[in-house]
Amino acid sequence: MSEVAPFAEQILEFFDNPGDTPYVIEHRHEEFTSVCPMTGHPDFGTITVRYEPAAVCLELKSLKLYFHAFRNEGMFFEAVTNKIRDDLARTASPVWLQIVTDWKGRGGVKSRVIAPWGDVPSAFGGG
Amino acid sequence: MSEVAPFAEQILEFFDNPGDTPYVIEHRHEEFTSVCPMTGHPDFGTITVRYEPAAVCLELKSLKLYFHAFRNEGMFFEAVTNKIRDDLARTASPVWLQIVTDWKGRGGVKSRVIAPWGDVPSAFGGG
Amino acid sequence: MSEVAPFAEQILEFFDNPGDTPYVIEHRHEEFTSVCPMTGHPDFGTITVRYEPAAVCLELKSLKLYFHAFRNEGMFFEAVTNKIRDDLARTASPVWLQIVTDWKGRGGVKSRVIAPWGDVPSAFGGG
Amino acid sequence: MSEVAPFAEQILEFFDNPGDTPYVIEHRHEEFTSVCPMTGHPDFGTITVRYEPAAVCLELKSLKLYFHAFRNEGMFFEAVTNKIRDDLARTASPVWLQIVTDWKGRGGVKSRVIAPWGDVPSAFGGG
Amino acid sequence: MSEVAPFAEQILEFFDNPGDTPYVIEHRHEEFTSVCPMTGHPDFGTITVRYEPAAVCLELKSLKLYFHAFRNEGMFFEAVTNKIRDDLARTASPVWLQIVTDWKGRGGVKSRVIAPWGDVPSAFGGG
Amino acid sequence: MSEVAPFAEQILEFFDNPGDTPYVIEHRHEEFTSVCPMTGHPDFGTITVRYEPAAVCLELKSLKLYFHAFRNEGMFFEAVTNKIRDDLARTASPVWLQIVTDWKGRGGVKSRVIAPWGDVPSAFGGG
Amino acid sequence: MSEVAPFAEQILEFFDNPGDTPYVIEHRHEEFTSVCPMTGHPDFGTITVRYEPAAVCLELKSLKLYFHAFRNEGMFFEAVTNKIRDDLARTASPVWLQIVTDWKGRGGVKSRVIAPWGDVPSAFGGG
Amino acid sequence: MSEVAPFAEQILEFFDNPGDTPYVIEHRHEEFTSVCPMTGHPDFGTITVRYEPAAVCLELKSLKLYFHAFRNEGMFFEAVTNKIRDDLARTASPVWLQIVTDWKGRGGVKSRVIAPWGDVPSAFGGG
Amino acid sequence: MSEVAPFAEQILEFFDNPGDTPYVIEHRHEEFTSVCPMTGHPDFGTITVRYEPAAVCLELKSLKLYFHAFRNEGMFFEAVTNKIRDDLARTASPVWLQIVTDWKGRGGVKSRVIAPWGDVPSAFGGG
Amino acid sequence: MSEVAPFAEQILEFFDNPGDTPYVIEHRHEEFTSVCPMTGHPDFGTITVRYEPAAVCLELKSLKLYFHAFRNEGMFFEAVTNKIRDDLARTASPVWLQIVTDWKGRGGVKSRVIAPWGDVPSAFGGG
Repeated sequence: MSEVAPFAEQILEFFDNPGDTPYVIEHRHEEFTSVCPMTGHPDFGTITVRYEPAAVCLELKSLKLYFHAFRNEGMFFEAVTNKIRDDLARTASPVWLQIVTDWKGRGGVKSRVIAPWGDVPSAFGGG
Repeated sequence: MSEVAPFAEQILEFFDNPGDTPYVIEHRHEEFTSVCPMTGHPDFGTITVRYEPAAVCLELKSLKLYFHAFRNEGMFFEAVTNKIRDDLARTASPVWLQIVTDWKGRGGVKSRVIAPWGDVPSAFGGG
Repeated sequence: MSEVAPFAEQILEFFDNPGDTPYVIEHRHEEFTSVCPMTGHPDFGTITVRYEPAAVCLELKSLKLYFHAFRNEGMFFEAVTNKIRDDLARTASPVWLQIVTDWKGRGGVKSRVIAPWGDVPSAFGGG
Repeated sequence: MSEVAPFAEQILEFFDNPGDTPYVIEHRHEEFTSVCPMTGHPDFGTITVRYEPAAVCLELKSLKLYFHAFRNEGMFFEAVTNKIRDDLARTASPVWLQIVTDWKGRGGVKSRVIAPWGDVPSAFGGG
Repeated sequence: MSEVAPFAEQILEFFDNPGDTPYVIEHRHEEFTSVCPMTGHPDFGTITVRYEPAAVCLELKSLKLYFHAFRNEGMFFEAVTNKIRDDLARTASPVWLQIVTDWKGRGGVKSRVIAPWGDVPSAFGGG
Repeated sequence: MSEVAPFAEQILEFFDNPGDTPYVIEHRHEEFTSVCPMTGHPDFGTITVRYEPAAVCLELKSLKLYFHAFRNEGMFFEAVTNKIRDDLARTASPVWLQIVTDWKGRGGVKSRVIAPWGDVPSAFGGG
Repeated sequence: MSEVAPFAEQILEFFDNPGDTPYVIEHRHEEFTSVCPMTGHPDFGTITVRYEPAAVCLELKSLKLYFHAFRNEGMFFEAVTNKIRDDLARTASPVWLQIVTDWKGRGGVKSRVIAPWGDVPSAFGGG
Repeated sequence: MSEVAPFAEQILEFFDNPGDTPYVIEHRHEEFTSVCPMTGHPDFGTITVRYEPAAVCLELKSLKLYFHAFRNEGMFFEAVTNKIRDDLARTASPVWLQIVTDWKGRGGVKSRVIAPWGDVPSAFGGG
Repeated sequence: MSEVAPFAEQILEFFDNPGDTPYVIEHRHEEFTSVCPMTGHPDFGTITVRYEPAAVCLELKSLKLYFHAFRNEGMFFEAVTNKIRDDLARTASPVWLQIVTDWKGRGGVKSRVIAPWGDVPSAFGGG
Repeated sequence: MSEVAPFAEQILEFFDNPGDTPYVIEHRHEEFTSVCPMTGHPDFGTITVRYEPAAVCLELKSLKLYFHAFRNEGMFFEAVTNKIRDDLARTASPVWLQIVTDWKGRGGVKSRVIAPWGDVPSAFGGG
């Protein structure tokens, strides 16, 4: 799925992991918006990226720009979540990674998608 | 129990699972209403559907219409919860499924029913 | 302890479990009141009943009347909790049962009592 | 440490455990105050006592008076917590016991101390 | 990394552990501020230190001064967290230690870093 | 507008005002539901009735049944609010009356309608 | 109405107003319970007494006992509120008085009654 | 300012005011987004429209589409607020109108703009 | 009343008002404790001091020490509030002053006392 | 007072007021920090600027930089508030202006300063 826009490799940047010992980084983007592919109406959500860095860490500003690039893309909740998981796992090569997306309600229904990659510790298993 | 209305097979729709890797989807419907079979008074609740998709995902709008179809049905809390579990497990054939229903208070008592199907991960065991 | 009032067998009613698969039911009564046996002052609390039904389910209105019957009984927090556990386990014969009572503060101290019966799943172990 | 005031044996009272089956009791005192031994300034905190009773239960009013007796004692957070743990374990001989103290901030720092005694169930391990 | 300012050995003070039995201490500093090394803009966060003391405990006022010493240092979130972990583990020699940093949002992204040292009990594994 | 269902005169009941001095009564019904006349989708809201009684007070159970009677009626938010105002003012003849309706969001928009009748005191002017 | 139980003159006590300058006293009792005169079911509410003392102040413990005396009386919300207003105004002779009662929901309806006596300042007009 | 996009006259629809007596309507759109004209970064906010209808009411779905039309427009907070006020006042000709916009923080600063039109009642003066 | 301890003149300090234009200062002390003169039990509350300074401002650290001096004094809520009002008005000679005290519950009753001095602006009239 | 740093004229920028009709702008900066002139310890607070623009509006990024310039200045709460009021009134010449500063607690005391300039509407009089 990762050959469609946004093009992760052209936006995301990384810096060397400053730690010698394993640790966990979490970024929560509360202003994510994309477009429903059926109705064209905007969707709004919060994206949480949680990972244990290996050689590199995600540079925060480039991660924000990567999220902004979804603004006018038409994708289902499940597809957005799977694409972010695949893009970040492929480009950052972390020890493990977990993406949690929380979507504002449509017609009285709120949705959440939890996508793990690699061996996510049990403490984070519920998202 | 699933031969009574609402008729899940006639309402629910599905789309192909867009992911290659296991992940979890959760839909929370905060505007569920049905009718008490004893008193005829309306009941109000929140229905949470949590599952790991296999071949297909639940289409969100059809799920909402399925919930709306309970509006004038007279059923106990426990029966509503078991019927939703059975209907969704039978039609979506997920890897696992969990239904949690939270009911507004009647006479100072609030109720919750947690119904699992298949091997629900321990992180979600408490509902 | 269960030979003192309220008399569970005379108040509680049951209906046949409508489910074929194991599931959990929780009722939270936020308007419980009894009387302190030492001072005669009223006590106020919330009673949570959590269980996996076997053959029968607790009928909600009779459960509420059972709770109301404590209104003018003088009992300690610990005794109330143990009596409810014993009464419900004896009359409903569930697979397992857990009673959690949360009491409003007296002189700056709030209390909670957690009483299990049978094999309560670990997800509910902390009350 | 338990030979300094307050003198637990002279204040605490107990009553016979009314239950036949294991259960957990928790008392949370939100109005604890003692004095900083360095500056003489008052400290304020919440003390949580959580235990499984053996032969006896802590009488609530005497527990409150025991907490009041710290009012003008000069002790560090860590020493208060350890003393309460030692005093209650020694006098009540519970199956297990856990003391959690939460202290209001001083200069932008809030503190918590978690002191177990015996085999605290894992559900309470995080305090 | 610990050869850069702030110089932990020159600021931190310790006192003898007053307890005979294992227990956990947590300090949460809600007024941490440092500077972004890229933009020079201030960063604000909350630092949680959680540890089981061995021979000594961290003296609270010196810990606060240690945090204040970061005020005009330019460091990334990940580097701040790793340095605090390394400094406290090296100087306090605890049984185990965990640092959790929560950073206020920049451009709609909030971050959290969780850095363990030694064998952190599973109850604290999620930060 | 009051000639359409629900028929207030056939449902509402009243009892004699027990007070000699002016006072205010407020009833908040948090489980109101009607149907959108355009789409047929259910609407959910909270209805607040605030009034100074003259000769009679609204009987609470009949008021609840009056609200239930809207369950399958198709009406706009503004029309529901105006009809309730007109029905209650006409049947209860209060000194003054105010209806406030708060509607759950549709597509990210939440609505509120505030309808006064007679001389509502300024303290309640904002709803 | 004040000739029915509870008998305010036999329970309430007063002490001399310690202030020389006008001021306002507010007591909020969150554990009020009485009985519905129609169904016999318990009602629960919060009673707020707000007044400017003249010669005497309400003694707090006797006020609590006065509230406790309603425990098994069958009265409507409106009657309870008017009786408390009349009893306190008659026995305490304040400069002004306001009673606000907030009642837990019955069948999805929560109620509030606001009863003034004398010239309540506009800042408190909304209850 | 109203000659720039979005073009209110082409999007907004109206229906006849169903009420005979003055009343207030409020719509709160929590998913507003536009673009900063300086940086091109997205802005997110909540728009509240509050008005007393004259001949017509704003149709809710068209109002939502009007808000969606700002999605890719570059405008300052103050300009967005003034344009919405001018557009709605010109097309709906209400008795009075008030627009309140609440913007998510940028660099630790949150903003609010309150724009009245006509004689807004004092109860709404603070936004 | 101000001749009893604590002795305001011996504790409070002041600094010159740094402003040329009228403005309001508010200090909220959330850790106030004194003793009930009847039972000897500790009372806990929050004290809010709100005033418009004239020639001098209250020095914050001395105000804190003044509050600490009540720690072991036996006084009613009303007397504490009136004494603080009189002490601060006499020693600081502000343009106006308002003291609001909020007391933790005793037996299910929470209290608040609002004591003005001079011409408190109407915006603060409700405390 | 405005001749000390930060130098408002050198930092603040303005843009032309885009509105033809009076309206109110509010900016809330939640990450303000300065230094106590007595102890050298950092102070943290939230600064709210509320004003009706005349010819110009405050440019948001320059306002943020102006607040950042206080980072290492030693000033009392009251002096900070008065300086911001004087600086913004002098440079922006608004119709009216109000500064509200809320400071995190020191030793259990939280402070707020409310400084008006010109004729602040009564709706904002309480800060």
